[in-house]
Amino acid sequence: MIEALSEAERVEALEGLPDWDHDEARDAITRNFAFKDFSEAFAFMTRVALLAEKADHHPEWSNVYNRVDILLTTHDAGGLSERDVDMAQAIDALVD
Amino acid sequence: MIEALSEAERVEALEGLPDWDHDEARDAITRNFAFKDFSEAFAFMTRVALLAEKADHHPEWSNVYNRVDILLTTHDAGGLSERDVDMAQAIDALVD
Repeated sequence: MIEALSEAERVEALEGLPDWDHDEARDAITRNFAFKDFSEAFAFMTRVALLAEKADHHPEWSNVYNRVDILLTTHDAGGLSERDVDMAQAIDALVD
Repeated sequence: MIEALSEAERVEALEGLPDWDHDEARDAITRNFAFKDFSEAFAFMTRVALLAEKADHHPEWSNVYNRVDILLTTHDAGGLSERDVDMAQAIDALVD
């Protein structure tokens, strides 16, 4: 059973994820991405899908043309966990 | 310039798309899909992405694990157009 981060742990984790915002209502983290076009956006989504399947930890996400919005939370933990932080770091590594 | 469907055209088109709902606020059509798992859902999304890129007509869509929600509308027409009907038929052909 994975546990949700404490507030102190969350604050520290978010300091290392400056491009992600905390969604208090969901206890989730979100990041919005913009690409040149749909092809680039979906290529990114495919890479995220491979990361997600490998980690068995899947995003809530949406896409409109060149934009991709990602929300990460851990349903089993009832909020943000280390798994979300790890996934956010892996996603950041694809684009930064 | 692609034109939005008239109400009569829309009603007729939706009769041929029984699995799609009309979103009045957006003048769009929506369908929700459920698959066995994320792998199957994303495989479906990849096929839809190829259809969309080929038609140069892209969905607004979201995914959470095994679920995929698709909304089709034609921004250039300010509402539902024949392009959405064609895309919905092509998407249906992938799953039905």
